[in-house]
Amino acid sequence: MTIIGVGLIGGSLGLALRKRGLAGRVVGVGRDPERLEEARRLGAIDEGTTELADGLAGASVAVVCTPVNRLPEIVIEAAKVGPNEILLTDAGSTKRALVERVEADPGACSRFVGAHPIAGSERSGVANARDDLFEGQTCVLTRTSRTPPERFRRAEAFWSSVGSRIMVMSPSEHDLALAMTSHLPHVAASALASVVDPAVLGLAAGGYRDGTRVAGADPDLWTAIYLDNRRPLMETLDRYLDRLASFRDALRDADAERIQQFSREARENRAVFDRLQTECRSPIFCP
Amino acid sequence: MTIIGVGLIGGSLGLALRKRGLAGRVVGVGRDPERLEEARRLGAIDEGTTELADGLAGASVAVVCTPVNRLPEIVIEAAKVGPNEILLTDAGSTKRALVERVEADPGACSRFVGAHPIAGSERSGVANARDDLFEGQTCVLTRTSRTPPERFRRAEAFWSSVGSRIMVMSPSEHDLALAMTSHLPHVAASALASVVDPAVLGLAAGGYRDGTRVAGADPDLWTAIYLDNRRPLMETLDRYLDRLASFRDALRDADAERIQQFSREARENRAVFDRLQTECRSPIFCP
Repeated sequence: MTIIGVGLIGGSLGLALRKRGLAGRVVGVGRDPERLEEARRLGAIDEGTTELADGLAGASVAVVCTPVNRLPEIVIEAAKVGPNEILLTDAGSTKRALVERVEADPGACSRFVGAHPIAGSERSGVANARDDLFEGQTCVLTRTSRTPPERFRRAEAFWSSVGSRIMVMSPSEHDLALAMTSHLPHVAASALASVVDPAVLGLAAGGYRDGTRVAGADPDLWTAIYLDNRRPLMETLDRYLDRLASFRDALRDADAERIQQFSREARENRAVFDRLQTECRSPIFCP
Repeated sequence: MTIIGVGLIGGSLGLALRKRGLAGRVVGVGRDPERLEEARRLGAIDEGTTELADGLAGASVAVVCTPVNRLPEIVIEAAKVGPNEILLTDAGSTKRALVERVEADPGACSRFVGAHPIAGSERSGVANARDDLFEGQTCVLTRTSRTPPERFRRAEAFWSSVGSRIMVMSPSEHDLALAMTSHLPHVAASALASVVDPAVLGLAAGGYRDGTRVAGADPDLWTAIYLDNRRPLMETLDRYLDRLASFRDALRDADAERIQQFSREARENRAVFDRLQTECRSPIFCP
């Protein structure tokens, strides 16, 4: 097994694979020898290399866990220099642009299945990796008319083996859903964190704390995600802005009925999420 | 001690007072005898009554813990029917409108000190009350030129006795600060919860969960808070909308530099909050 990019996600994958005894050997590929050494010391990989071809020698599966803007080139390159039989998969937060670019390259297309394990943290780096990060969490696999069926079956088995619950979607469906469930919440949290005057933060409690938690996420990683999912995110952001503007109108008019309606609808939607959390994690298991 | 309105906050106050042995007797006043009986059974009050005058007989302190829209009339009425020496205080999330109305009534003005213990939960009702709800949490006391000094000292002693850390502000300063740290986060969470299609909630993870948690709060309570703090909230909401609109422009232009800047500023502000949380809870203790 080869992990390309050994940060929070790649490192957690390594820990999970090694803890479960799922790989003869986990090789980490990265640009920085010191970080690879840290990953090795923390038990996330058996060995590290800065050379992609070396890291892929003899690998049956390679998972690309780099920031999303670097995924396409690495997947395409890995298909060139890796073994013929390799399964290439990834852990990127956006899928459409990646899958399109990979499918335009026949060698990469025939080995690749897009994946997005929905797990993470506002913290980054291998030092924050956890061997149970994927357990019970949804992992989306993308399937298109060009997805190689044998690789798809292997990708299902691979991501299930680290505890993920598989959900299958098209790349575009995935990107629109994630714009709503993940990218918009990050934008909203960052905007919130940046408008609250630091001088009054001594008065902040749970509403602020939870509402801004993900604003602590890595700016470079998230800039890449926002740009990669630009259109679905703009569409979703526009709906959010409309909703806020309509609340603002109701507030200006001191329209208690509309304000109450706004709060009630929100509470009902949120209750759906709470039920899903307790009953089952993903709609694929309880349609 | 008398608690008027025995829900989450009033109930927690009763539990704290009784646990710490701070009151000879805690009397609860409410409209619903069944809820008062529930509060008694849960140990939040020693006895309950639906009659304000009965509940205030012999009380040295009365804390009004009703929704904010009912506070002014109850404080004014309590000043009329309660003992002369009583300290009247409250636990409302907004202060300017209340203090103005109370100060217009000489009898109420001479007995009242506005308070806002910044503690709570998206859950309501005495069943969710906790005896440690106020421990280590900031409690704002409002002071104006008309605040009675002796009552102010008693209010400080009272709120400190349940574990609160006192912070003194003018009613308007309080309301603007809370618009930012609490009311806007509630609006943002509700708007977020209402734009995410329930069909994709199986894909939601930490960003959605935390970003929408307070959308579960009681719509009636929050409608009253929003309306009571209308102008500061509109001002704060406008800054939030501007910030989101500027992110949207950067996204439309695929302007990586501006998007990164947006994320970086947010992360820096959020880091200030994290430092306050670990070092000390409130600026009054570490200026």
